[in-house]
Amino acid sequence: MIKSGKLYVVGIGPGSYEDMTVRAAKALEESEIIIGYTVYVDLIREHFPHKEMLSTPMRREQERCRLAIDQAKKGKIAAMVCSGDSGVYGMSGLILEMARSEEGVEIEIIPGVTAALSGGAMLGAPLGHDFAVISLSDLLTPMELIEERLRASAQADMVICLYNPSSKKRAGYLKRACEILMEYKRQETVCGLVKNIGRKEEEMAVMTLEQLRDAQADMFSTVFIGNSMTKLLNGRMVTPRGYKNV
Amino acid sequence: MIKSGKLYVVGIGPGSYEDMTVRAAKALEESEIIIGYTVYVDLIREHFPHKEMLSTPMRREQERCRLAIDQAKKGKIAAMVCSGDSGVYGMSGLILEMARSEEGVEIEIIPGVTAALSGGAMLGAPLGHDFAVISLSDLLTPMELIEERLRASAQADMVICLYNPSSKKRAGYLKRACEILMEYKRQETVCGLVKNIGRKEEEMAVMTLEQLRDAQADMFSTVFIGNSMTKLLNGRMVTPRGYKNV
Repeated sequence: MIKSGKLYVVGIGPGSYEDMTVRAAKALEESEIIIGYTVYVDLIREHFPHKEMLSTPMRREQERCRLAIDQAKKGKIAAMVCSGDSGVYGMSGLILEMARSEEGVEIEIIPGVTAALSGGAMLGAPLGHDFAVISLSDLLTPMELIEERLRASAQADMVICLYNPSSKKRAGYLKRACEILMEYKRQETVCGLVKNIGRKEEEMAVMTLEQLRDAQADMFSTVFIGNSMTKLLNGRMVTPRGYKNV
Repeated sequence: MIKSGKLYVVGIGPGSYEDMTVRAAKALEESEIIIGYTVYVDLIREHFPHKEMLSTPMRREQERCRLAIDQAKKGKIAAMVCSGDSGVYGMSGLILEMARSEEGVEIEIIPGVTAALSGGAMLGAPLGHDFAVISLSDLLTPMELIEERLRASAQADMVICLYNPSSKKRAGYLKRACEILMEYKRQETVCGLVKNIGRKEEEMAVMTLEQLRDAQADMFSTVFIGNSMTKLLNGRMVTPRGYKNV
């Protein structure tokens, strides 16, 4: 009889131990080996000091998933860690796809607090009403489709949360996105920018859409663009729950 | 000198203790009094058996927030609990709005795993790419705007997650939403429906958009409609991370 392994795909939240769910912490505790992108593995290492850990650099997602699946195939209890949620731009889809023909590997997906939620809480309550989450990374998605999504969401007055707003290779993407959004939204629209959520260097700022156009974002930033009702209350970004009686 | 109080606005996740973040559990432990909608207060009562708890019925949101703010004004450490996240259709915006002129009340917002994430993990990985979160409740939002958002998100091929898909007063809303979405999305589009996430009665189903049109949802349901790339893999709903090389 083959000993069957288990693979947890764990959303660890923004990075600190406290922002993990109890379920996520238990799964990591139970795991014999933890696999992930170098930065995230380093974030959790101090809380699970005696665990075996494997990490791969950025963009080596398939290799990382293969490592994790192979550990479970050997009969181990393994955990693949993802920052934020395991599903939102996370590894759970790739794991399910790559493991679809593997027998005897049980996969359990554990959700986590994604940057839209953790960044939102830092800023106030930007996601109090309907919203769209859009990544500005055009690595796997045509830029025309990203722009179409920006236009569609802005036209329907949705709050917009941008992931991957910028990187060295993609300088100017946030500026371009803001220019598109300003065709539909007022330039005074309340916006927010958070960086390094849950880490020592954590910072946040609220600003107008016009100011956001010229703001500096990086790959550890998350951006929020309000709807027409979003307001600034004592320095916090708040989107009311509706359009009537508010 | 006035003793200043503190008010935590806590997203408790889908309902079980394990799905709370460590930070949320600590805040509730630290609080002298916990306030919330009856159903959510009952969900956490067993884990915090010695806490004073106050609850108000559905739709009494303003009254509930007033209760919570008043406790903090008295100098207490209070916690307002929200299911899922504290911000996504949660109470944090209303709390910030109602407390904007209160001196000496510190407000800390603690995010939690919203139904889009917890339901997504149950179904597989439906939110692996850009998505929109839309509530079908027209209590505070004109139906025309809700329909516009459905059309915009579908036209731009975004995954759509529907909150409040149905209630006794709003029977037929999910059917109507699916009919609108079918103008833009194939009737074979992979969809998912989850009910009572994180509770004993938890259930989930994957189906086509055409089947979803005639499915039964209630106020404890969350609905997922895939994009054009979303597929069914061993019974799980998976949206790939992009459109290229997948």
